[in-house]
Amino acid sequence: MFRSAATVDRLITLLGKLPGVGRKSAGRLAFHILKMPIEEATGLADAIREVKEKVGECQVCFNISESSPCYICSDPKRDQSVICVVEEALDVPSIEKVDSFRGLFHVLGGRLSPLDGIGPEDLSIKALLTRVNENDNIKEVIIATNPSVEGEATAVYLSKLIKPMDISVTRIARGIPVGADLEYADVVTLSQALEGRREF
Amino acid sequence: MFRSAATVDRLITLLGKLPGVGRKSAGRLAFHILKMPIEEATGLADAIREVKEKVGECQVCFNISESSPCYICSDPKRDQSVICVVEEALDVPSIEKVDSFRGLFHVLGGRLSPLDGIGPEDLSIKALLTRVNENDNIKEVIIATNPSVEGEATAVYLSKLIKPMDISVTRIARGIPVGADLEYADVVTLSQALEGRREF
Repeated sequence: MFRSAATVDRLITLLGKLPGVGRKSAGRLAFHILKMPIEEATGLADAIREVKEKVGECQVCFNISESSPCYICSDPKRDQSVICVVEEALDVPSIEKVDSFRGLFHVLGGRLSPLDGIGPEDLSIKALLTRVNENDNIKEVIIATNPSVEGEATAVYLSKLIKPMDISVTRIARGIPVGADLEYADVVTLSQALEGRREF
Repeated sequence: MFRSAATVDRLITLLGKLPGVGRKSAGRLAFHILKMPIEEATGLADAIREVKEKVGECQVCFNISESSPCYICSDPKRDQSVICVVEEALDVPSIEKVDSFRGLFHVLGGRLSPLDGIGPEDLSIKALLTRVNENDNIKEVIIATNPSVEGEATAVYLSKLIKPMDISVTRIARGIPVGADLEYADVVTLSQALEGRREF
């Protein structure tokens, strides 16, 4: 443990709490910050503060946003008939990259996980149901939770609640990712790829 | 590119400039910061600012420090007869972990690298020579630059300057690291391990 500068120690400790940053990389980051031009380091500190001050949640879709409703929810050119449900706000930019999707989003804020004590009331599921119920435009809900055990369970749970509202509920396809090698694909993915096969 | 929050974008861009942080991990870090308790995020921002305000260089050994001379240079219990020369301040804590070394340090601030335009005047070599020259206590200079081409060149350069002052100049040993497997050791390391062999 380096003792010469308490402020450096403190920075290393705080950086080390970030995800994917161990003690060693925290040290490297701290020394990098020490060597940075002062404006750059101050810029980073300010950016962290600002993000906490200005960014909140859209009260419609629960995506992170500086305004509520967010730019997606308030865009009239968006397809108002489709809602894509994702686990985290981090998933929205991934789907936004797909040009063919121009619908709306709904961020759950996690996934059902009884073992971690996360139940339906901990996610924005009630708000999703109200949203779907009160809005006649909505024709389809695409469930894009992760293809993990919890993500699948969440998808099934949601579909059971939304289907009775006479709305089409779909799940994004699972299969072999583009560019992957069949040889290295796991058996579950392969079996789902076979199950989801389509005619030419 | 995520467009909903300009402040988030800015934070991602700045985090992405840190070493070892790509665009994807910068996004993950930014979203983590968004989810952090406000005090924790503010603490991190303050720590970055503080480190830039309070931490400077020790004017004797060029290690990072909140005071000059630093706690190592001003500690009378340290062995004043040995100076360990390292490339970066980041190397000091590594050597500090070795209990058997309780001498002084000298941080070069890099290594000689003509291809990158780094010559002797860009490092704290002059200060080292003056320090060794003016201080009769110093009996040995241990050169602990990295075992890279540039680190070796720097070590040779320094030894040629310091040896004529009638001071013992040593280089840390290169060889097989403890716990490593001979099978996977590269031939240069192996040859240096053989060369540096010692009798039982």
